[in-house]
Amino acid sequence: MGWNGKNTTHAGIEERGFELIVAGNAVPGVYWAPSNAPSERLVLLGHGGTSHKKIEYIVAVANFLAAKGIASLAIDAPGHGERAIEGAANPDMDAFEQTWREGGGTETVLAEWKAALDFIEDEIGARPTGWWGLSMGTMMGLPVTATDERIRVAVLGLMGTRGPNGKDLERFAPRVTCPVSFLVQWDDELIPRQTCLDLFDALGSKKKTLHANPGRHQAVPQFELAASADYLDRSLR
Amino acid sequence: MGWNGKNTTHAGIEERGFELIVAGNAVPGVYWAPSNAPSERLVLLGHGGTSHKKIEYIVAVANFLAAKGIASLAIDAPGHGERAIEGAANPDMDAFEQTWREGGGTETVLAEWKAALDFIEDEIGARPTGWWGLSMGTMMGLPVTATDERIRVAVLGLMGTRGPNGKDLERFAPRVTCPVSFLVQWDDELIPRQTCLDLFDALGSKKKTLHANPGRHQAVPQFELAASADYLDRSLR
Repeated sequence: MGWNGKNTTHAGIEERGFELIVAGNAVPGVYWAPSNAPSERLVLLGHGGTSHKKIEYIVAVANFLAAKGIASLAIDAPGHGERAIEGAANPDMDAFEQTWREGGGTETVLAEWKAALDFIEDEIGARPTGWWGLSMGTMMGLPVTATDERIRVAVLGLMGTRGPNGKDLERFAPRVTCPVSFLVQWDDELIPRQTCLDLFDALGSKKKTLHANPGRHQAVPQFELAASADYLDRSLR
Repeated sequence: MGWNGKNTTHAGIEERGFELIVAGNAVPGVYWAPSNAPSERLVLLGHGGTSHKKIEYIVAVANFLAAKGIASLAIDAPGHGERAIEGAANPDMDAFEQTWREGGGTETVLAEWKAALDFIEDEIGARPTGWWGLSMGTMMGLPVTATDERIRVAVLGLMGTRGPNGKDLERFAPRVTCPVSFLVQWDDELIPRQTCLDLFDALGSKKKTLHANPGRHQAVPQFELAASADYLDRSLR
């Protein structure tokens, strides 16, 4: 386990692959950093359900962050990406929930993200760190942010109190105390709007801000992706 | 009626007073412009209830805009500022609603804002124009934006479908079609949260975005004022 030697550099961003073993499972990940200077801040990028660590919007946010001198990392969630099992790319919510449960749910992702951050801190050093993750990226990131004091700021959203791990999120939300920017898709066909507003409500953070835009679950406007990187940049200074 | 000769210039912003007569009533106003260059864009600034045209946050937004080369103007609403009547500064909602009704309500403010924009366009020239106004600034600005095609973008918020002119707002909202940024105070003690969300819902604009922050009606964070000026700047280009 460790760096896997799959490295590339282009357009000012260096990408390094790694693989960890957590509770017996191989967890593949990728670390991005600006290629021209040391990066003194880090963001963990949690991908959405039926997606993977290098899906387009994750790479887009990694690039927005790298342009501000911020490193980032992503890992494949259980049953996703290089860990995909039959049918994991099925966008059906029942199939997704089954993948989530069979992958071990909240406790497993907490252990895996802790291992990933530990690894990068051991290798590169500890730095001010944030979380970015929507939908399943919030199912993972809200508990991570609530329990790992290294996370100083989070971009969350597209998830509510009645999602696949809604009970966990309700329980962890009051323990989130760092600044949070929370995104809502106003016409979300997967996660009822009111449950998203309820989850925002439940966050313990004194500094929290909600951005809502018209459109369905997957139609987050590009300007919000850019704005979320700006928010992390300002908050991690 | 016209410029009243009360002019000042400081810190890069020129302020010129004016007074109009609309339906027999004197309407005092102020026009702000960057002092060092012609401004090719304009924003109308609608102040909140029990407030006036030069209240601190209006001046703050005028300065944010001037720094981007954008001119702005504000007028005192009926019963406010230089037009204040006994008790108009009373923050009591019943007293405020009485002031609003006795001032002529939606129809009067539509006529006054049209006169103000006509005056500035006659004097300075027609330019891409936006609206900025929260609370009573939305009670005025939503109907103005719905009916005056010169308004190309609006910052609205802190108002709902059951405010003092809630029925008017419900009626005009579908006719608002330009981009809108809508602010909500999550713990608003004057305007129930859900009625604000309902008003955002009712806006006809395809491009609309909602920003919500914790706190009471008057506790809009300074960063949202700055962000609202950025939004107008981007939208009026």
